[in-house]
Amino acid sequence: MMNEDLQKQIDFIKEIDKLKYIQRKTKLFNSDRHENDAEHSWHLAMMTIVLSNHSNKPIDVLKVLKMVLIHDIVEIDAGDTFIYDAVKNHSNTDEELIAAKRIFGLLPQEQAEEFISIWEEFEQGETNEAKFAKSMDRLEPLLQNTSNNGGTWKEFNVPYQKVYEKKKAINEGSATIWNYAEKLINESVEKGILSKE
Amino acid sequence: MMNEDLQKQIDFIKEIDKLKYIQRKTKLFNSDRHENDAEHSWHLAMMTIVLSNHSNKPIDVLKVLKMVLIHDIVEIDAGDTFIYDAVKNHSNTDEELIAAKRIFGLLPQEQAEEFISIWEEFEQGETNEAKFAKSMDRLEPLLQNTSNNGGTWKEFNVPYQKVYEKKKAINEGSATIWNYAEKLINESVEKGILSKE
Repeated sequence: MMNEDLQKQIDFIKEIDKLKYIQRKTKLFNSDRHENDAEHSWHLAMMTIVLSNHSNKPIDVLKVLKMVLIHDIVEIDAGDTFIYDAVKNHSNTDEELIAAKRIFGLLPQEQAEEFISIWEEFEQGETNEAKFAKSMDRLEPLLQNTSNNGGTWKEFNVPYQKVYEKKKAINEGSATIWNYAEKLINESVEKGILSKE
Repeated sequence: MMNEDLQKQIDFIKEIDKLKYIQRKTKLFNSDRHENDAEHSWHLAMMTIVLSNHSNKPIDVLKVLKMVLIHDIVEIDAGDTFIYDAVKNHSNTDEELIAAKRIFGLLPQEQAEEFISIWEEFEQGETNEAKFAKSMDRLEPLLQNTSNNGGTWKEFNVPYQKVYEKKKAINEGSATIWNYAEKLINESVEKGILSKE
């Protein structure tokens, strides 16, 4: 007898291949090549296992990994939203919720519900795990932009104040990492790759 | 005071960005675009969280995730080795060990030792976690090749017998998934996208 659950899982595994085509605004380190969502998600997962010891609070690392691995899958349908976009707010749009239900809904029901719930927990950003996952999501492009002579900050004229406002969410996940990040932001102003309004 | 461990971790996080440039022989699903190692590692991590319930033995999913996320990082220095390469054996070459020591060695010592040990455990393939991780690593290109009209099997004239020989390692991780994979291989012969010698 065919294992129906396995077939659903394989269908999901095939569908999410599309994440490799979703291009982000940010570029790879010291590079002109745009990063895609699958590469970005892998990098956040690596950062999670490397940096989890700096979390402010005890965290379930497996849960954070699930969050960062799946957090952008909704963009297969909803597209990438630039964090400094003034019109479209990134957080949990209706479009993204519909996407979550369609894509995670390919999985067997219990698993679909678990994935939707983990994605919502990440979006809401209230648990220790979600706070740490979000701090990883804020840190990666900061490291990329500083390696790329200002990167998207320069390309889209994003001023220091907006960058600082978005990046300070890192502090919710890890004060140690925020201390490092804050220095990087200030150094970027000194170097002239990030401008005050 | 500067946190020296954090700086080492950030240096490692920047270095492994290079995995996004390591091109594999296999191509994305229904596609002509080659997959890179970072995308591949993300996909194996997703497959692990989706399929872990089919493991033959109880497994520490967090450990399997660490394995699949880091398993190809040595290729930053050693390059991708094609699984059906007749000259160069994939498993744990001297070159790969040197690469592991250099790249994981960027991390604080305790973490470097942990990562090298996890990578070696994966390569040896003897623990339940390593067996399951390897079954994921064998399954993804099988799914890709069947979606790509034979993919690398056709491109490099790899016969059924060699494919079967490599893929049966899936059975060590999951008999249920192997049952599915074996059917896919046999159907590929019937469809003429995989040939017997």
